[in-house]
Amino acid sequence: MNEVPTSLKFAAPQEVTTGPIAGSRKVYASPKNNPELRIPLREIALSDPNEPPVRVYDPSGPYTERDVRIDLAEGLTPVREGWIAARGYRAAAGRAIKPEDNGNAGADRLAPLCPATRTLRAGAPGQLVTQLEFARAGIVTEEMIYVAHRENLAREAAAEGAGERIADGESFGAEIPEFVTPEFVRSEVARGRAIIPANINHVELEPMAIGRNFLVKVNANIGNSAVSSGVAEEVEKMVWAIRWGADTVMDLSTGRNIHNIRSWIVRNSPVPIGTVPIYQALEKVGGDPLKLDWEVFKDTLIEQAEQGVDYFTIHAGVRLAYVPLTAKRVTGIVSRGGSIMARWCLAGHRESFLYERFGDICDIMRKYDVSFSLGDGLRPGSNADANDAAQFAELETLGELTKVAWDKGCQVMIEGPGHVPMHKIKVNMDKQLRECGEAPFYTLGPLVTDIAPGYDHITSGIGAAMIGWFGTAMLCYVTPKEHLGLPDREDVKTGVITYRIAAHAADLAKGHPAARIRDDAMSRARFDFRWMDQFNLSLDPDTAKKFHDETLPKDSHKVAHFCSMCGPKFCSMKISQDIRAETEAMAGMAEKSREFVEGGGALYVEAAE
Amino acid sequence: MNEVPTSLKFAAPQEVTTGPIAGSRKVYASPKNNPELRIPLREIALSDPNEPPVRVYDPSGPYTERDVRIDLAEGLTPVREGWIAARGYRAAAGRAIKPEDNGNAGADRLAPLCPATRTLRAGAPGQLVTQLEFARAGIVTEEMIYVAHRENLAREAAAEGAGERIADGESFGAEIPEFVTPEFVRSEVARGRAIIPANINHVELEPMAIGRNFLVKVNANIGNSAVSSGVAEEVEKMVWAIRWGADTVMDLSTGRNIHNIRSWIVRNSPVPIGTVPIYQALEKVGGDPLKLDWEVFKDTLIEQAEQGVDYFTIHAGVRLAYVPLTAKRVTGIVSRGGSIMARWCLAGHRESFLYERFGDICDIMRKYDVSFSLGDGLRPGSNADANDAAQFAELETLGELTKVAWDKGCQVMIEGPGHVPMHKIKVNMDKQLRECGEAPFYTLGPLVTDIAPGYDHITSGIGAAMIGWFGTAMLCYVTPKEHLGLPDREDVKTGVITYRIAAHAADLAKGHPAARIRDDAMSRARFDFRWMDQFNLSLDPDTAKKFHDETLPKDSHKVAHFCSMCGPKFCSMKISQDIRAETEAMAGMAEKSREFVEGGGALYVEAAE
Repeated sequence: MNEVPTSLKFAAPQEVTTGPIAGSRKVYASPKNNPELRIPLREIALSDPNEPPVRVYDPSGPYTERDVRIDLAEGLTPVREGWIAARGYRAAAGRAIKPEDNGNAGADRLAPLCPATRTLRAGAPGQLVTQLEFARAGIVTEEMIYVAHRENLAREAAAEGAGERIADGESFGAEIPEFVTPEFVRSEVARGRAIIPANINHVELEPMAIGRNFLVKVNANIGNSAVSSGVAEEVEKMVWAIRWGADTVMDLSTGRNIHNIRSWIVRNSPVPIGTVPIYQALEKVGGDPLKLDWEVFKDTLIEQAEQGVDYFTIHAGVRLAYVPLTAKRVTGIVSRGGSIMARWCLAGHRESFLYERFGDICDIMRKYDVSFSLGDGLRPGSNADANDAAQFAELETLGELTKVAWDKGCQVMIEGPGHVPMHKIKVNMDKQLRECGEAPFYTLGPLVTDIAPGYDHITSGIGAAMIGWFGTAMLCYVTPKEHLGLPDREDVKTGVITYRIAAHAADLAKGHPAARIRDDAMSRARFDFRWMDQFNLSLDPDTAKKFHDETLPKDSHKVAHFCSMCGPKFCSMKISQDIRAETEAMAGMAEKSREFVEGGGALYVEAAE
Repeated sequence: MNEVPTSLKFAAPQEVTTGPIAGSRKVYASPKNNPELRIPLREIALSDPNEPPVRVYDPSGPYTERDVRIDLAEGLTPVREGWIAARGYRAAAGRAIKPEDNGNAGADRLAPLCPATRTLRAGAPGQLVTQLEFARAGIVTEEMIYVAHRENLAREAAAEGAGERIADGESFGAEIPEFVTPEFVRSEVARGRAIIPANINHVELEPMAIGRNFLVKVNANIGNSAVSSGVAEEVEKMVWAIRWGADTVMDLSTGRNIHNIRSWIVRNSPVPIGTVPIYQALEKVGGDPLKLDWEVFKDTLIEQAEQGVDYFTIHAGVRLAYVPLTAKRVTGIVSRGGSIMARWCLAGHRESFLYERFGDICDIMRKYDVSFSLGDGLRPGSNADANDAAQFAELETLGELTKVAWDKGCQVMIEGPGHVPMHKIKVNMDKQLRECGEAPFYTLGPLVTDIAPGYDHITSGIGAAMIGWFGTAMLCYVTPKEHLGLPDREDVKTGVITYRIAAHAADLAKGHPAARIRDDAMSRARFDFRWMDQFNLSLDPDTAKKFHDETLPKDSHKVAHFCSMCGPKFCSMKISQDIRAETEAMAGMAEKSREFVEGGGALYVEAAE
């Protein structure tokens, strides 16, 4: 085992961001029949005693507990260990770490391996391993119970008649239940409409679901840069992204130390970790796509599956015959994985080994329950290329591969574009659902225009909200630095918050029964001038408070019945409160008014004249 | 005349922002048959000699000319003076300025009046004054010719067969022509589907059109705050907003010096200026809504019309009977004008004087060609209140008033919400078109969720892009400070850029024939690694360059065939270029591939096995 540097051995809180989000506290709730399960939620207490606290979905893990003590070298508490252990998989010896796993980094430049010890497991033939296999066998796993409780949020109250369903919506065929039961989760997973990315070797995971009938999820990408950052810094990127609401994190690292850094990330991640194994495979062959082959790729899959990665992007839909379809494109192939495979296919004029070996890939991924994220290697990189023959040919192949993976017992989601103008978004969703048998769609944006580098969180957030509404299950974030450079801390936060907006807007529009609870609590806080409640209910309390305080910094302003925009004299909310008091005093007035409106609005004027 | 302070007499360029946007130059183009008209455009030259320069719509006025010398005290060149003079209106004496026009500011606190002298004009009964009256009479005004040329951008080339129509789209009934002729502008104005807000006393105006069959426009709001800013600072807010792309500016000032500051803004504005006269009327009666009456309102309309304000928000749809419909709302009335009028109606239990005197209001506005922006005083302030009875009752009344205004010869647009979840947006557009006879819709956002204060440029930008696509003609921007405080310089810029994104995304989706030219030029620049061209083509070249330079600051990086995101080894664009070269070398390959795809994708694999 590698020596652990002192700075990592007992990571002080300052090494990763810890502590509650302003105005919130972490709570754990248990389903009635499963007191042993502790499902995390974030609770926002409100200052009005008549307002119940608002509980929101919380992917941030133990990092947002009060007074939490994090030891990166130990990793997070392995909440799934007992569940997995009870399933009786064989303990595997595991593949030996090779120098090329870390880019042949010399001893002086080698990052340490995370020393946290876990039993390495692999499913045997005939054993149930994947959530899909359990679901088909009619077995409700702990993960499914956990997910059901997590998705419900405040819907318990509504189910028990205490709350009110406040949402309407247009779901475009999604079937979001009033109340999520473990059996519902099982059935959604069984029919492939949802996945629970949960490698049996990622025992620290707080399970979550990705599917059209659940809350829309958000992925954030992290990855070390050329100037390799430290191990704690890499973990911090993940911690920071989930703090603001990322539901999964993809580690897109390239370069040296890729294996060892990943060990720290997985051991300390409460959310599913996704990777693109071809990136590491390419590193192993010195960066030359033409040197890639099945053996090095297979070796990489096993390596990462054993580490506990929860889903792999596999660009198996980039077939030789589709490559020429991209030749006349304005922006060619913009997916890294897609371009690597296209290069490989074209150079030897041979079919993709990912496509030809797809069954073997499934067999490996099933053993650990690594979910597929079937990559859209031919996604459009510009409005001009949106929805073209290359893109749709690949999507059809992804549909074909979905069925293969399902037959092999693997969970599958499908990646989607990209750069797509608004009027071409819906056809992407409809075609994906049709071709891929309703497997969850996982889209990057899409960006609805190409002309705003520096603001592509916004250009893509517009498309993301729309495609989320139409049915995309998870949205891959885009930061303001997209097309320009590496995102820093603020960019990651901006990207995540923007995508939480898009995901929540989609939930509202789909008619998610619990989505509007938070909006309505915010609106009531606005009408009542409860400023601290407004800050605390917002997606980013720190920024909301900071912006407010720039103009009205005093504590007394936190209870003022006006804000800096209009001042007290012009405050419409203030006037509106007076109006409410007056109209309530006037008996019958509302009734009269209704008659007036129903009568066509003319009677009243005549009577007054 | 007031004494002009030295600091304003010859405003140095540093007092307002001047000079070209990075990488662009201001050009003036003339229609073939009207060499006397000089229509402003911004031209972005590209580094590839095979790439024609891209000309973009430019509302920024002379401020973005190279080496421009601005004298705020003289005002901008009165480009419309000759056109208006030729129309033979009587020179009016004008209403005398009263102390209450400036909030009774004492001599020591009184901002000076802009000393620029202009002939004050008013139309007489029987004279053609408004663009609508000219249009109905079959007369094509200089404003219409100007607008037509301005809207066409690069469509001349396409019309002459040299260019290619590259856009498709779904226009939801909009009828955007391949080429905009002055006659088309006239016919759109004549049928009320477009307006050209152009007060005959705003001779400095560079005319523009607001209508569903033209480019989607953006409005930015400015206004002095409680801590009143200086005159140059107020003008700078306008100059800064139009620099980044605001097509009109609303001056929402309250407090002292409102009249005199407005004089500086109008005289120095190349874009239409909108106001909400009830704000100033309320100031004149000491801030008490109950003291408002027709006389003070009428006086204010005349005052502002004589100053050259181009459009007035008039909340005449807030009728007494609708007020109780808001009593049960979560957020009541959130429009300032709406709440003032509701208060007024309710206190005396009387019908709105704006509604009852609407014909008189029309008569005043017609004399100067001030356009109506019929205010949505009952717009929803939360998702919970969206599309409710109060909102739609008012919209129906706005439809009724539209017809009254049209009969009186006035130009009209209609204001729209507000806070609306995605699935309730389209019905707003459809109902507005139906109720208001296709008069242009001018919406604030809408915000698609309530939970993101600090990011409401984004929550509203999503809704704005969608409703713009559905048919809204002008989008009123929202800054990150919405709901929290007063926007600063950066907030205004962020708001305008976000809304330019929304407007452009809408143009693309509607299938505007010229909209994609800039996107495609950007995409080609991306594929060719022309970094400077990418910066210059972007909506905000400064930010794009800054973001790029944070990671790759050297000049050599501006021509590098990779970026910091993937580095040279992983660059998909680079690989893609190689692929293009290879596939082009392989004759027949593309053909084969097409056969394969058309054949169902199965043949090829069989042959290879």
